[in-house]
This record gives sequence, structure tokens and C-alpha cells, in this order.
Amino acid sequence: MEELAAIERRAARIRLLLMDCDGVLTDGSLMLLENGDEQKLFNVRDGHGIVMLHRAGLQSGIISGRTSSFVKRRAIELGMKLELVCQGSLDKVKDFGALLERAQVNENEVAFIGDDVTDIPLMRRAELGVAVADAAMEARAVAHYVTKAAGGSGAVREVAEVILKAQGHWNTLMQRYTK
Amino acid sequence: MEELAAIERRAARIRLLLMDCDGVLTDGSLMLLENGDEQKLFNVRDGHGIVMLHRAGLQSGIISGRTSSFVKRRAIELGMKLELVCQGSLDKVKDFGALLERAQVNENEVAFIGDDVTDIPLMRRAELGVAVADAAMEARAVAHYVTKAAGGSGAVREVAEVILKAQGHWNTLMQRYTK
Amino acid sequence: MEELAAIERRAARIRLLLMDCDGVLTDGSLMLLENGDEQKLFNVRDGHGIVMLHRAGLQSGIISGRTSSFVKRRAIELGMKLELVCQGSLDKVKDFGALLERAQVNENEVAFIGDDVTDIPLMRRAELGVAVADAAMEARAVAHYVTKAAGGSGAVREVAEVILKAQGHWNTLMQRYTK
Amino acid sequence: MEELAAIERRAARIRLLLMDCDGVLTDGSLMLLENGDEQKLFNVRDGHGIVMLHRAGLQSGIISGRTSSFVKRRAIELGMKLELVCQGSLDKVKDFGALLERAQVNENEVAFIGDDVTDIPLMRRAELGVAVADAAMEARAVAHYVTKAAGGSGAVREVAEVILKAQGHWNTLMQRYTK
Repeated sequence: MEELAAIERRAARIRLLLMDCDGVLTDGSLMLLENGDEQKLFNVRDGHGIVMLHRAGLQSGIISGRTSSFVKRRAIELGMKLELVCQGSLDKVKDFGALLERAQVNENEVAFIGDDVTDIPLMRRAELGVAVADAAMEARAVAHYVTKAAGGSGAVREVAEVILKAQGHWNTLMQRYTK
Repeated sequence: MEELAAIERRAARIRLLLMDCDGVLTDGSLMLLENGDEQKLFNVRDGHGIVMLHRAGLQSGIISGRTSSFVKRRAIELGMKLELVCQGSLDKVKDFGALLERAQVNENEVAFIGDDVTDIPLMRRAELGVAVADAAMEARAVAHYVTKAAGGSGAVREVAEVILKAQGHWNTLMQRYTK
Repeated sequence: MEELAAIERRAARIRLLLMDCDGVLTDGSLMLLENGDEQKLFNVRDGHGIVMLHRAGLQSGIISGRTSSFVKRRAIELGMKLELVCQGSLDKVKDFGALLERAQVNENEVAFIGDDVTDIPLMRRAELGVAVADAAMEARAVAHYVTKAAGGSGAVREVAEVILKAQGHWNTLMQRYTK
Repeated sequence: MEELAAIERRAARIRLLLMDCDGVLTDGSLMLLENGDEQKLFNVRDGHGIVMLHRAGLQSGIISGRTSSFVKRRAIELGMKLELVCQGSLDKVKDFGALLERAQVNENEVAFIGDDVTDIPLMRRAELGVAVADAAMEARAVAHYVTKAAGGSGAVREVAEVILKAQGHWNTLMQRYTK
């Protein structure tokens, strides 16, 4: 993990926040039902972090190796552009590049949050590579920033706040609630 | 957080307990199913706290930004008046005022429990503004009382006990079980 | 909580283990689905504790204020007699007496595990009154034994082991696995 | 628990990883729905550990006393051979022997992960007998290795890494992500 000042410098440049889904937006549980359905646990405060990012003019998206209908549903609810939600990704590096093109940002304007070794290539390409607190050791080792919160327990909210504070948006956003 | 004596003075005046749903009555997990269904986790001991509040003559209600059929179902089960359950709230301050009118109580007779920055305006209006243990830092900073329990893990029960004890109802309610 | 020797003397007399459901066999979460269904989380190791009690010739049963089809289903799976499973109990003390009659045991041969103040009357009647680790303070205060494990996380298994060890059954039961 | 060097010597010989399901691949929660359905929580990082084992040429399988359709579904997703998935096992020792025959490995080439006393006979037969962190005390007492992670929270991933590192496969597998 880098020093706070370096993390803030990186966070100040971010225009797009990308993230893995299982283990980042969720706690990594795969909940399977006998009828073939799957269930995911998202975190309500993570969701508000993403909404605040959008309100400040940033974009966000998801790259996931798995596919579930409710990821799309949750993304819509949070105001993500669906063209920035990539599920069933077999080549995360290629899809990462495609999402950056669609969002019209460069690698030095993107933050990526991951939890496992498969996310390491994206964490290294991103200006701000983030690993959740309970990520695989190898992923934490290469991250610029390791969250205090575990995946599904506020890690995405924590990163949203780091970015919004580094860009001077946080206090403005809080005025809506505290004035 | 205020001193115990001040919290007790506030709690002694409460006639209506209002609360956010996600992150307060639940742990903040949004459980989404592929078939479009959603699931929520309520806490059985929170429920009994609300039942005891009603038994002592107080009222309770919910203000939530989201909407789910089981919130209504759970409210009925706990004996809440449905006119004090407001879901899909886009303007929490306005809806807060409407609920107070329906319950015929003033701001200095209401307690409100929240977990995120969006709840701050209600926590400040309420005589007793409560943040759950795992609430956003800004919400905990303005709360008169921060619960020891996290949302969904007994925070509402804890507030119900604080109120019932401050009003001298607790020992009477316990006699049903201990005599 | 009593001293170990007193707990063991009580445990040695037990022929029937009764327990509350929500907060004891589960962690107290009420999981509600939009379609009106409910879901409960039981613990696989609790289940094996009950099976071992039955194998040693003891009986077990449930007294719950709520009603769910899967409580019956789980009880059957564990080999409980359904006549010892009482759901939707409005008068727990009366139903407690009825279950004892059906099981043909006296109050000084029954253990009861509870988690909330409503369970206190049964904990006081039972030879061995048990509160789970995360029970309400008042319930823990009157318990002969407070488990180290929380409800839904092995509390029932822990009590089953305390009883089986006090009665000298544990080592015999373990021979099946360790010989 | 044995010394690290002894554990590594055992891990270096493993060609087949067998495991119990409830309490090992899951956290031991039995989630029952009113409609008769059951649900299980698997861990996404455990899954990737099994995929990496297969990639390194090892085999894996499941022995469970219970039966659920999604265990088969999860096994397929992870690339397990279904002939190495045994559910509804009434005689785990016999089924353990059958799985070894199908996989064409000897007892001194198999690792087994368990969580309860019923798993002890398999843990003793296996070259590497593993108990999860929250296993029954008796199971932990006979294990060659006790995981730091609890069942359902990465215990299987931890064992996969121990084996892959002891066999010199880990660094090769990581090159896919770190180069």
C-alpha cells in the first residue's frame, strides 16, 4: 500500500471507478438455490457511495467473470450506464480496455477494486489499484490502496469517499444533508 | 454522542420512534434474487423491542428510500400502524413531517434511528437522534446517541430499551416474565 | 451462571432438551422474501448435536412463538418427535407443561435454551435453564448456564455436549468416529 | 496440528482433494425456505482455489451426508468430475474408498477437509487430514492441519494454496496474473 499523499494524488485524477462484483460489491458468498436461482448480497451504503460519485460527475462500472441478472438490475438502480457493466468476462484485460474506451477515459484516470489474483492485471493497469481488506494476499501486495472494509461491507463506499475527498467534492455533497 | 443523563432526558420525552429500514432494521444487505425478488433480514429481538414499545403506549414507524412488500408485512406483524410506514421516500424531511402529523406528536417527542448521511437531517430534527454502531462517520458525529449494536443486530432493541427505561416502563414490562 | 459442578449435576439429570427456535436454533435473523416466503438459517453442527442426544436415549423439542413449515421439516430431519414441536405458542408456560407431559418427564429432568426475556419463565422452571451467548441481559442473568456460542452458531451443539458429557455418553458416542 | 515441514511433505504428495460440503465449502448454515427449497452459501475465492488445483493437474471431489441439487451444480461450475461428488453418504468411509478408486489414487495421495466428528475417520485415513478453523474440537485434535479460515470463508482456498505451494505450482499459476 502506498502512502496517503500518493493515494490522494492518484484518487484526484480518477474519472471512472471500475470494480469486480463477487467479493467486492458482495462478500464473496455465492448463494445458490435448489431451483437454479442465485442470490447476491449487496450493501446499501456501497450503493449510496456510487450514487454520490455519479452526482459529482464521475462514472462507474463493473467487470465480472460471472453473470447474473440482478447485477444488471442493481447497476440500473445505482444509475450506472449499462455499457460500463461487463459480465461473463473471459478476458478481463481486454474488457477493461473496452470499458475505458466506452467511458472515454485513459488508464491514468481509472480506479479498479478487486479481491483475487485474477484482478491483479487490472489493479496494475489502473491509476488507483484497490484491494478489499479480505482480498487474496497477492492482490493486497500489489494494490496502491487496501480498504479497511471487507468486500460487501462498505469497501466500495470507502473508495468512493477517498476519491470524492481527494477531488474536493465530499464537503459539497455533505451540505445537502448537514445544512 | 451526548452524556447519559442528557440522553435519558431526551428518551423520557419520546412518544414516537421512527427509523430507517435498510442498515437499521436490517444489516444493510440488499439480497437480490435472479427472479427479481428481494429478501431482507430482520432481527427477532428488534421485533420484540418494538412490540414492548407499543405495549407501553408508544408509537413506531418507518421511513425508507426503498420499497419492498415485506417491510409492510413485517410492520403489520409488529403492530405498527401502516400510516406510519413510509416507503419509497424521495424527500425524507417532508415525509418525516407528515408522519409526525399523522402520529400527532411534535419533533421534541420523536426519536429517529439512521445509518447514513441521508438520515442526518432527520436525526437533527428529532429530540433523540440515533445512529447505529456501523453508521457512516458523519451520521455518528451528529447523533445524540450511538448504539452499541450494529444495524440488524439489535440496534432497534437497544433504543427501545433506552426509551422504556428512561420512562420507567421497563421494570413493569419485565414483571410479565420474571414474576 | 452457576459453577461448573452445579451445571454438571443439573445436566446429569436431563432427559428432555427443549429450545426456542428464533435466536437459538437460528441467529435471530428473520429472512423475508417478497413472495411472502420466509427463510431460516439452521446450523449443521447443532443438528448433529441433537442427533447424538437422541442416539443416547434423550428426547428433544421446540417451543416457538412463530410458525414456519421448515421448522417442522428440520425437526423431522433431526429425528425429533413432532408431538414435541410446538409452534405459534401464545402461552409458552402452558405449552411447556404440555410438552413435558407428552415426553413423560418432570421439570427437574428438562433443559431449556432461550434467547430473550419471553423465555425467562421457562428457563426458571427447567432443571437446566440455558441462555445463548447473545441473549438479552435479563435472560442471561437468570440462566444456570450461558453458552459460549451465539444462537445459530453452535449454542445447541454446546448444550448437547454439556449434557452428554455429564451423563457419560460422550466418549461412547465418539468411539464410532475415533476407533 | 503437525509442524509446517511435515504438513508440506504431506501436501507435496496429494493428487486428490476431497472435502465435506456443509461447514467446509459453506459456513455450516442450512438455509431452509418455506417452499421446501434449500439454499447454500459458497465462497467465490474457494472456487478459484479449486479451479487452480485442476489447472495444476490435481483432482477434487465432495463427500456429503446431505443431498442438494446445487452441490452438483457448483461442482460442475468448478470443473469437478461428477463421479467424484458423493452426496447422501450414509457410510463415509466406504464412499471415501470408492472415490479413491474412481480417481485412481491411494490414501497417501489424498487430502480431506472436514468440520465435525463424523469426518474424523476420513481425516485419519487421508495423507493430509484437514479441519477448518471452526471445526469440532475432536476433529481439530486429530487433524494434520487446521486452517486459519473458517468453513465457507476461504478454508478450501487456503488448503488449495498449501498444496499448490508445496508442489511448486503456485508461482507458475501466479505468472498468468502478475506478468
